[in-house]
Amino acid sequence: MIRIAIDLMGGDLGSAATLEGVNRFKKEHDDVELILVGKKEELPTDGYKVIEANDVLPMTAGALDAIRKKDSSMYKAISCVANKEADAVVSCGSTGAYLSASALILKKIPGVSRPALIAPFPTKIRGKKVVILDVGASNENSGEEIAQFAMMGNIYAKSVLEVETPKVYVLSNGTEEGKGSPEGKEAAKILSESKKLNFCGNIEAREALSGEADVIATDGFSGNVLLKGDEGIAKMMSGMIKQAFKRNIFSMLGYLLAKKGFKEMTKTMDYKNTGGAMLVGVNGVVVKAHGSSDGLAFYHAIDVAYKLAKSDLVKTIEEGLAQ
Amino acid sequence: MIRIAIDLMGGDLGSAATLEGVNRFKKEHDDVELILVGKKEELPTDGYKVIEANDVLPMTAGALDAIRKKDSSMYKAISCVANKEADAVVSCGSTGAYLSASALILKKIPGVSRPALIAPFPTKIRGKKVVILDVGASNENSGEEIAQFAMMGNIYAKSVLEVETPKVYVLSNGTEEGKGSPEGKEAAKILSESKKLNFCGNIEAREALSGEADVIATDGFSGNVLLKGDEGIAKMMSGMIKQAFKRNIFSMLGYLLAKKGFKEMTKTMDYKNTGGAMLVGVNGVVVKAHGSSDGLAFYHAIDVAYKLAKSDLVKTIEEGLAQ
Repeated sequence: MIRIAIDLMGGDLGSAATLEGVNRFKKEHDDVELILVGKKEELPTDGYKVIEANDVLPMTAGALDAIRKKDSSMYKAISCVANKEADAVVSCGSTGAYLSASALILKKIPGVSRPALIAPFPTKIRGKKVVILDVGASNENSGEEIAQFAMMGNIYAKSVLEVETPKVYVLSNGTEEGKGSPEGKEAAKILSESKKLNFCGNIEAREALSGEADVIATDGFSGNVLLKGDEGIAKMMSGMIKQAFKRNIFSMLGYLLAKKGFKEMTKTMDYKNTGGAMLVGVNGVVVKAHGSSDGLAFYHAIDVAYKLAKSDLVKTIEEGLAQ
Repeated sequence: MIRIAIDLMGGDLGSAATLEGVNRFKKEHDDVELILVGKKEELPTDGYKVIEANDVLPMTAGALDAIRKKDSSMYKAISCVANKEADAVVSCGSTGAYLSASALILKKIPGVSRPALIAPFPTKIRGKKVVILDVGASNENSGEEIAQFAMMGNIYAKSVLEVETPKVYVLSNGTEEGKGSPEGKEAAKILSESKKLNFCGNIEAREALSGEADVIATDGFSGNVLLKGDEGIAKMMSGMIKQAFKRNIFSMLGYLLAKKGFKEMTKTMDYKNTGGAMLVGVNGVVVKAHGSSDGLAFYHAIDVAYKLAKSDLVKTIEEGLAQ
C-alpha cells in the first residue's frame, strides 16, 4: 500500500479542484491510501483518512511562515511523511514555503548538499520527456551542487522515466567545452571525470527541449528562468493561436477543420499533463502541483507522487550517492 | 551621412544572402554609405565602397581567433569603426568572436564596467518590444554590472524604442522584494536607491514578454538562457503548428482558411523581423545579425545599426553614465 498525504488547501482554485483530482485518483487505484489534510469544513466526511488543520498558508507565504504555522494544512501534510504515516506528500501551495518546510521537516538525504526542484518538460519527440533541475529550490549553487543535481536527475530518469542510460547534460551558453557559467563549467569538469553516469557535455537552452537530453542540470536561478520563460512564451503563443483562429468566420471554420491537431499540441504543452515538480534530495517524496491546478493537474501530480513512492526513489538516491 | 561597415561573410547562408539585404537597404536609403568587407571574389564590382579581406572566421571561431586574424572580414569591418571610417558595424559571424573583438578593438565607453548584448523581444502587446540585457556577452556579472545594464537599457529604450519613461525591471525568480540571485538582489537594491530611472522591481521570466516591462536587466548567463530558451520553444511550437495543419486534407484546408492570422503570428515571433542584437557599452554601434540571417533578417539588422548610429547612442550612454 502506497500512502500519500494530500494538502487539500492552498491552491488557486480551492479545495473543490484538488478534491476532484483526489477522487478520480482513488477510483482508479486500489493499492493507495490517500490522507487528506485540510480545514474541517472542507474535508470529505467519508471514504478517506482525514487530518484537520486550522490554518491555510497563502500563496505569498515564505519559508518562515511555513515553519511557524504548525497548524497549517501544508505543515501537517509534510509531517505525515516525517512521522512515517505517509510515503509521499502533494501540495499546490506556495512553492517557497513548501520547499523550505519540506527540507526542514524531512531533512536532507545523507550526502546531499542541496535539495533540488526537478521538473519534467515535454520535448519535440512525441511522448519523450526531459527532466531539468534545479528549477528553483535555490538561488545560487556551486559546481559541486550542480554535479550532484545531475546525479540525482540521472537516478530519477532511470527510475521514473525508465530510461536505461540517460543522456545527462549541463545547461550552458555554448556547446563547446569551456563554455558556461563558472559553476556550470566546474560541474561539467566533475561530471566528465565521473564514470557513474553518461555525461554528454554542454547543452544550450535552445536545444533543451529537442529530445536529445534526458537530464539537464543547472543552478536554481537559471533553471527557474528556463522553466518560467518556457511557460511564458508557450502561453503567449497559445494566445496568438487563439487570436489567429478568431480572426474572422473563415479562420473559425479553419479551426473546426484543424482542431484535432491543435488539441494534441495543447495537451503536449500543458503543464496539467506533465504532473508535478518534485523536490529531490530530502527524506521523502515531495511533489509540488502547480498553484493553479485543476482536478486533472492535481490528479497527475498525485500520480507522480505515487510512481516515485513505488519506485522507492529516496532509497535509490541514498544508495546512488553512497557509491 | 550615416556610414555602416558590413561584414559580408561568415553567415550560414553565405554572402549572397547578406548582399541581398545590403542591396535592398541601399535602395531605400539615400543618407547612408555602406562599406562592404569580404573576399575579393564575393564583393560587388560597383556601387559600393569595398574593402578586401582574405580571411573568413568560421562560426566556431572564438575570441582569440577574432583578435589574431587581422585579415578577416570581421576584424576589418570592426576596424572601420575604430578608424572613424564608419559609425556602425554589422556582422552575422560567430557571436563570441564578434563580441570579444569589438570590445577589444573599440574599447569600452568611459565608466562602463562590462559591455552587454542587448536584444529586442516581441511581447503580447502588438508592436511593443521589450529589451533584455545582457543576453550573453558575459558568463557572470556582479550586482553593480547588472544595475549598469539597466541604465544602458533605459537609454536604449528611450533612444531607439522611443519610450518616454521606460519601465525597468530586474529578472528574478519571484516578484517580491528580496527574491532573486544574490547579484540580482544587489542590482535591485542599487536601482531602487537611484533616482535616474523608473525602476519597477523584480520580474519573473514568465512575465518577461507580457508587455509590462520595457527593459529587463539580468546577468549574461541567465539572459542567454532566457533568449535561447524562448527561441527553442518558439521553434518547437511552430513545428507543432505545421504538424497540426498537415494532419489530413481537412486540416490543410483549415490552414488555407486561417493562414492570414498565422502568418502574422510567425512574423511577430520571427527573429528576422526583430533586427539584430547590439553590443552596448563600447565606442561604436555594433550590431549582431543572427547567424542564419537571410536577406530580410540582414536588412533589419542594418536598419537597427542605422537607427542607433543616427540617434548617437554611444554619446547618449556616455553622457548618461557620466551624470
